[in-house]
Amino acid sequence: MKKRVGQFLFDEIAKQNVDKVFGVPGDFNLAFLDDIVANPNLDWVGNTNELNASYAADGYARIKGLAAMVTTFGVGELSAINGIAGSYAENVPVIAITGAPTTQVEKAKRYVHHSLGEGTFDDYQKMFEPITTAQTYLTEENALTEVPRVIQAALENKRPVHIHLPIDVAMKEIEVPEEVEYPEVKSFDLKPTMAKVEKLLKDSKKPVIITGHQINSFGLHKEVEQLAEKLNLPVAQLSLGKSSFNESSKQYMGIYDGSVAEPRIREYVDESDVVILLGAKLTDSATSGFSQGFADDVIVTLNHKDVKVDGEVIQQPSLPGIVEALQNIDYKFEGEFPQYEWPEDDAYDLNDQPLTQENYFKVMQSFIRPNDILLADQGTSFFGAYSLAMPKGATFIGQPLWGSIGYTLPSTLGTQIADPSRRNVLLIGDGSLQLTVQEISTMIRQQLHPVIFVINNDGYTVERKIHGEKEPYNDIQMWDYKALPAVFGAPDTPTYDVKTSQELFDAMKAIEEKPDQLHLVEVHMAVEDAPEKLEKISKRFAEQNK
Amino acid sequence: MKKRVGQFLFDEIAKQNVDKVFGVPGDFNLAFLDDIVANPNLDWVGNTNELNASYAADGYARIKGLAAMVTTFGVGELSAINGIAGSYAENVPVIAITGAPTTQVEKAKRYVHHSLGEGTFDDYQKMFEPITTAQTYLTEENALTEVPRVIQAALENKRPVHIHLPIDVAMKEIEVPEEVEYPEVKSFDLKPTMAKVEKLLKDSKKPVIITGHQINSFGLHKEVEQLAEKLNLPVAQLSLGKSSFNESSKQYMGIYDGSVAEPRIREYVDESDVVILLGAKLTDSATSGFSQGFADDVIVTLNHKDVKVDGEVIQQPSLPGIVEALQNIDYKFEGEFPQYEWPEDDAYDLNDQPLTQENYFKVMQSFIRPNDILLADQGTSFFGAYSLAMPKGATFIGQPLWGSIGYTLPSTLGTQIADPSRRNVLLIGDGSLQLTVQEISTMIRQQLHPVIFVINNDGYTVERKIHGEKEPYNDIQMWDYKALPAVFGAPDTPTYDVKTSQELFDAMKAIEEKPDQLHLVEVHMAVEDAPEKLEKISKRFAEQNK
Repeated sequence: MKKRVGQFLFDEIAKQNVDKVFGVPGDFNLAFLDDIVANPNLDWVGNTNELNASYAADGYARIKGLAAMVTTFGVGELSAINGIAGSYAENVPVIAITGAPTTQVEKAKRYVHHSLGEGTFDDYQKMFEPITTAQTYLTEENALTEVPRVIQAALENKRPVHIHLPIDVAMKEIEVPEEVEYPEVKSFDLKPTMAKVEKLLKDSKKPVIITGHQINSFGLHKEVEQLAEKLNLPVAQLSLGKSSFNESSKQYMGIYDGSVAEPRIREYVDESDVVILLGAKLTDSATSGFSQGFADDVIVTLNHKDVKVDGEVIQQPSLPGIVEALQNIDYKFEGEFPQYEWPEDDAYDLNDQPLTQENYFKVMQSFIRPNDILLADQGTSFFGAYSLAMPKGATFIGQPLWGSIGYTLPSTLGTQIADPSRRNVLLIGDGSLQLTVQEISTMIRQQLHPVIFVINNDGYTVERKIHGEKEPYNDIQMWDYKALPAVFGAPDTPTYDVKTSQELFDAMKAIEEKPDQLHLVEVHMAVEDAPEKLEKISKRFAEQNK
Repeated sequence: MKKRVGQFLFDEIAKQNVDKVFGVPGDFNLAFLDDIVANPNLDWVGNTNELNASYAADGYARIKGLAAMVTTFGVGELSAINGIAGSYAENVPVIAITGAPTTQVEKAKRYVHHSLGEGTFDDYQKMFEPITTAQTYLTEENALTEVPRVIQAALENKRPVHIHLPIDVAMKEIEVPEEVEYPEVKSFDLKPTMAKVEKLLKDSKKPVIITGHQINSFGLHKEVEQLAEKLNLPVAQLSLGKSSFNESSKQYMGIYDGSVAEPRIREYVDESDVVILLGAKLTDSATSGFSQGFADDVIVTLNHKDVKVDGEVIQQPSLPGIVEALQNIDYKFEGEFPQYEWPEDDAYDLNDQPLTQENYFKVMQSFIRPNDILLADQGTSFFGAYSLAMPKGATFIGQPLWGSIGYTLPSTLGTQIADPSRRNVLLIGDGSLQLTVQEISTMIRQQLHPVIFVINNDGYTVERKIHGEKEPYNDIQMWDYKALPAVFGAPDTPTYDVKTSQELFDAMKAIEEKPDQLHLVEVHMAVEDAPEKLEKISKRFAEQNK
């Protein structure tokens, strides 16, 4: 049948379980936004700015497996570029679509708005190359093969792709067959590799699997749990990849974060003679500044398109292929390993003293329920929250590799709209919230009901811990955070002012009574207070910068 | 004397009349932020996010001639990239400094936070190449020559430069001589070119100079006015370059914006047989979609490093060199030309009817005073405001080539802090304000006192006029704009709710009585109302997208 190129693109995107498209309108995309509005399976979600749109798309993709966003040429796509780079770093598939000037305008090298005024039109496409896994300039002639190619690339690598779509091309009609052909995914014979892994395991006394973020990206949770059970291997998670393993599993040991890990886990992992990294990267923030105690030569890297066994680099298989192949290993670990000790739900201390970070997270532990989505921004929130135990079905989202402060607020828009039935809880600090605050407006506009905890501790505490504790560059302007929902059009939003653990506890009870509302809790804590892990990790970061 | 590389860099920047550095702290720049704080000639201005920092730096540079900003690796610099690209397009010199991981971390290809997690460290530097006029990776060895080279490049081309500064390099001590050497600017013999221009003028019956944004970038106002007087040539301005010519000069005709220009100006310019573009680019927004009535072959292009006379491309001289050489032309125009008719200050209609866009700008004309800085965001505000007459010494700032909505709000932070003695007036629409709203917080923190007029007309009117007038993608969330200053920590800020011309007039009187305060005026206007020029230009834009 005949379809406009834009219509075809959004039909194909909608086939992939995508039901929202994020973005900001601009005159070079308006005409094909009509194809989103007209698509019965898609809704347009207008964001307040493009960076926020890219963060929202990232959050959405982490829950739904793929996201799409639309911006305009230049000003729009470049505002989104930091968010897309974050999706690239953390393996999140986002289709970033740019509405561009017509091919005639381009051919004539005209000085149009949003261009650099030099007659060139390919600069921004080049800028997207390092941070996307595939790129395309759509034309009437190539749309039928290029659209499937880039969608497939996003899904196959769980990374963003960039589509440059001239507005005249979007309007062109093409003939689309009943069955659109997608490229075949290359498969690899992994038997020789698995034989090597099997041998290493059989020779090992203390093997361990460390799971990371790619397990979340590829949604391989069940498969990895089955695998760990079958091989009876202990599993530790990285903070970059929390939620990658069922914390209730008997195979689970806990978070491994290098020298700051709980001693019994640290000792087991540091003494391991085979450390299988499964979709996991040993980044500085995940390892407290590369403080892992095991040597490089015990590492077996089984990451997406990055496999290294016994120091040997092997092909570029996909992570799902690797996990599938691992199931055929003939091995069962017979040794002992420490099991994760689930924290007590009521370990907190309820009182009317100024709330401490330590007590804050203990109370928070009691608040998190099965199936919640917990988002923690890269500051005291993340470094406190990643040690929380995740109840069954709960999802934890942070961004410790990319580490763009402010990310989680728009991301919560994305995760919440991806599945409005799940409760979303956002933990964020004041400094981070200020970067992207206006996306609360879109949450309200979309009638979403996340619970937002804003830590008001007067500045960038995470930076203070690294350098310049009392320097003015780590200060921020004091805001009236509780007044935000009213500014953004929802004056009836319940807000809470929390200074003690008792007040926090009471706020949580009130929140639980009204699940169908957005809640905003301002949590006051001392400027120099920080979660223990942050205190330690920040020292390692300061060291790393010397 | 011995200086740390970071200290040296900021000392050299401070020598160029720069007294503020914008940005956001991050662990890869914290250590050298100390060199800003310690510098007696520099203040650190912490922004709420990096895009806003880049816009603020752009505004500052438009007033002071140069600006500097600091972000962190990856997340920070990429968030700023749209603002820097805008500075590139519109010829504004901003030094964008990235604090980066240490050279050791880079050599070891470590997976550090803010990297893509692939062991590469040069991706972002490449991304900055298309949008900066010079780039450098500072080292201990090259700092003494590279710092002057890139500062010089920014000043010479009035375009941004990018500096990648590893945090360990910033801390290294180098020996700095008393006199730091800056590269010499290449000069050209322009006599043959000027002889051609002279001949063209002598053969011409209706010559005209069209001035554009580069005159503002290079600060050549006096020189160009002298030139026009000496040659007795009529001058028209582009909207991309308003403020480039003294509107009180007897040489001045008015704004030339193609088919929508005032008929007597349009007729003169369209019939011209020699059109000298002086630091001016005929962009779509400046010419109402390339609707200029003169042919390409009457154009003499005298732009920075872009000179074309009689179809011939000549060398790459600088704009100041061109303007200087033009003074030596032996010519005086003897013909007639229409002179600019200064609008009456009280042409408005004061009443209690719903305020119209037309009347809004008539009242605004009465409000603008000599030496004001008037900023107008790229929407109804810009398309209405660029026809206002600028009193002596007043500066107009818009961004019609880059056209990034939301730009002017942080830019106002920059222009106001660049010269707190001048009154800054910002005209912005609701859709635009939502993108960058949090920079009002920094204005408050810095105790600045601009006057902000926010048009509340419920969405992206500029887009509605191009396509999809009633489509949901052009709607936005309704905010309580007048509550913003209180949220950002200044509950005593005078705010005004304006629905009629009388209310607008009254608000302006009240504002004039309190010059030492920030004022926020919410101006309600009908959703479909737009300045006449926007109505016309948007039709041309819709046409251009077919």
